[in-house]
Amino acid sequence: MLKTEILSVGTELLMGQIVNTDAGYISKRLPEAGAGVYYHTVVGDNPSRLRDCLLIALDRADVVITTGGLGPTQDDLTKHTIAEVLGLKLYDHRESRDRIDSFFAARGRTPTENNYRQAMIPEGAEVLTNDNGTAPGCLIRCTGRYDGRVIIMLPGPPDELKPMFDKYVMKFYSDNSRQKLHSIFVRICGCGESLVETKLASMIDGQTNPTFATYAKSGQVTVRVTAGAETEAEAETLTRGAVEKIKEILGEDVYSVDDEEPEETLVRLLKENGLTVSTAESLTAGMIASRIASVPGASAALVSGTVVYTDEAKKRLLGVNEKTLTEHTAVSAQTCREMAEGMKKLSGSDFSIAVTGYAGPRVADEPVGLVYIGVSATHKTVVRECRFTGSREKIRTLTAVNAIDLTRRLIAELKIKAEGVRNDAAAAAEGKEERV
Amino acid sequence: MLKTEILSVGTELLMGQIVNTDAGYISKRLPEAGAGVYYHTVVGDNPSRLRDCLLIALDRADVVITTGGLGPTQDDLTKHTIAEVLGLKLYDHRESRDRIDSFFAARGRTPTENNYRQAMIPEGAEVLTNDNGTAPGCLIRCTGRYDGRVIIMLPGPPDELKPMFDKYVMKFYSDNSRQKLHSIFVRICGCGESLVETKLASMIDGQTNPTFATYAKSGQVTVRVTAGAETEAEAETLTRGAVEKIKEILGEDVYSVDDEEPEETLVRLLKENGLTVSTAESLTAGMIASRIASVPGASAALVSGTVVYTDEAKKRLLGVNEKTLTEHTAVSAQTCREMAEGMKKLSGSDFSIAVTGYAGPRVADEPVGLVYIGVSATHKTVVRECRFTGSREKIRTLTAVNAIDLTRRLIAELKIKAEGVRNDAAAAAEGKEERV
Repeated sequence: MLKTEILSVGTELLMGQIVNTDAGYISKRLPEAGAGVYYHTVVGDNPSRLRDCLLIALDRADVVITTGGLGPTQDDLTKHTIAEVLGLKLYDHRESRDRIDSFFAARGRTPTENNYRQAMIPEGAEVLTNDNGTAPGCLIRCTGRYDGRVIIMLPGPPDELKPMFDKYVMKFYSDNSRQKLHSIFVRICGCGESLVETKLASMIDGQTNPTFATYAKSGQVTVRVTAGAETEAEAETLTRGAVEKIKEILGEDVYSVDDEEPEETLVRLLKENGLTVSTAESLTAGMIASRIASVPGASAALVSGTVVYTDEAKKRLLGVNEKTLTEHTAVSAQTCREMAEGMKKLSGSDFSIAVTGYAGPRVADEPVGLVYIGVSATHKTVVRECRFTGSREKIRTLTAVNAIDLTRRLIAELKIKAEGVRNDAAAAAEGKEERV
Repeated sequence: MLKTEILSVGTELLMGQIVNTDAGYISKRLPEAGAGVYYHTVVGDNPSRLRDCLLIALDRADVVITTGGLGPTQDDLTKHTIAEVLGLKLYDHRESRDRIDSFFAARGRTPTENNYRQAMIPEGAEVLTNDNGTAPGCLIRCTGRYDGRVIIMLPGPPDELKPMFDKYVMKFYSDNSRQKLHSIFVRICGCGESLVETKLASMIDGQTNPTFATYAKSGQVTVRVTAGAETEAEAETLTRGAVEKIKEILGEDVYSVDDEEPEETLVRLLKENGLTVSTAESLTAGMIASRIASVPGASAALVSGTVVYTDEAKKRLLGVNEKTLTEHTAVSAQTCREMAEGMKKLSGSDFSIAVTGYAGPRVADEPVGLVYIGVSATHKTVVRECRFTGSREKIRTLTAVNAIDLTRRLIAELKIKAEGVRNDAAAAAEGKEERV
């Protein structure tokens, strides 16, 4: 296993102007490649401090991945400092220079002289092309004093770094690993992290191939399954086998094996089945609709929505009965049901999602965290009572995630039903043919 | 200036399960206290590697702030490792033990024996109490070999770390600074970062007291103004003077000098003036309403909203004319105006915000980034055409921020008007009295 250190260069990180998401991204991906991240270091745009940090990193890691400091200005000194430490000369890399010219030409602009600084490459380095910016990366296999060490330099902007990391760095680790790796991300909703771990314990414990790692974020759990083998196909077979077992154990709670967000799965299912959805939101106030709309192409599935914060709005927009609000209050299963059914009528969509609840801060004796989630589907209306804990933002997010997930479950139910009907029809048709 | 290193401890950071937001928060705050962050280091829950990192940090920094590793499990080894390096014994800190008991009692639970590990404190350390968790922090003024160095240990969870940092660590830096500092965050909307810098250049250039720093995020710019003086009052006077100058130069584009988000300012203004708002959202699909609702107490100001993604929804919910949609399309100033006015009628609110536009991905020859933002106020309806660039998410966010900001501007306009009227009325009243 290659011990890796991520060395991020940039005063803006030390000033807190940006958070080090590059280090987070690389750290999340490397275990898939069978590598271990042992250290993150952040240093400013200062050559002597960068030099010291590089020497420390070369001393304790096999691979040093630097992020940032490859741009065109005098502040960008990663390449020059590293070349100096290794005693390498920089040369003008023709191809990188041409790429800078084309990049600017495509935008109707002309590069200034300092842009060509980015085309200077340390001798012997492998050039990593950058399809989303002008700063190429590079990979140096050290000789001499640091023989065997590898330094990989990547640009700082995440939209440049990520594709380069995926294309070159993951390949580097895979080439240097005796085995090929395959990972699948199993996404789970409706089952907490510790319950997932308990349910999977007998399957996971003592397993070394595949390996499993669980992560949790508001309302969701992800299980990463990674297997290694001599060929990629074998690794994939091992991974798929484990994933099938997880699906057997967790059942309906597994909503995706393609690393999708809940709203991505929902929009995909809606579109696959030619169905539409609408929303009626009280405490989330548009968060559910907004999450659905964040998926490209959502316009084919999302018809309309309402934000009904006040009792008046619930009555006026959705036709919730005055009597229901008085007898049961706005936060009740009855109101939630009328909201969902009222929205379905208003929008003409196949599914309507409604939520109402107390997000906090606490007013009088309101039970903060009490939330009703209702979905009115073509075949029935379902309302669930939930008790969430945490901040206002967390309660709203948990409500949104669970509402989206409940809709996904009802589509799955409908699909099973429809397939049953189709099978009946097919059987009947076959029967008919027999009778002919 | 105290050179500071942030040493974060936690394998979950190296695995990319969480991003190092603690380091980001501390880095952002320390310049206000006149301190400089020179390095961030992240290391896993491994005592020998933590020891090595601590030695490096003590060698190159005046103050080392550690985050994480103060919890109850065997993995949590920050305090024990640091005590060992400094040759300090740990003792059972009575008060911390009592606080752990009360914390659990308040939740109707009993602490397990390992919870009391958290009450072990290195001798001579100052205890930093934790009001949001069971792990106290501590501050050690080193003697002997590391004489003069200071080590501050804080827990990892951000909702525990932030209040402790604000209360104890900022005070430590302020006590150790020859001068008192005061900072104000000027929040700006409607003027890009480079334009802000250009406009303020003559004021900022060469200034050393106060100092200025600008940060940008989607649609907003923040200018931090920090002044130092012998007393806090003097520092505040210097800061306020500079802020007044910025407000003169940037005018209406300054929306807050209290470090508020645009939606916080909007909700505050609405509530102060007894006004209400509603939303009609196409491309943002609930993002504007959701941002407004994220402000505690927003229910007094936000009446209702609609998500009108399709032409059908725009007609059915808001009464947009078929003819307008056919002649001008859904993305037009005309449609936007009818959406805003239709929403105002539907909701009965004082202000209605409407947005329509192309967020991408590009379909046919749609001009991605073309957005109309309309606000129907009590005194008039305003529609603005905007051209945004960037990803789908960025275009939606820019739309939301600018729509919220346009509403804020119209409230300010209304207020000036109302004050005009009130002054007229007052003048008339005075006149009357004179006439009596």
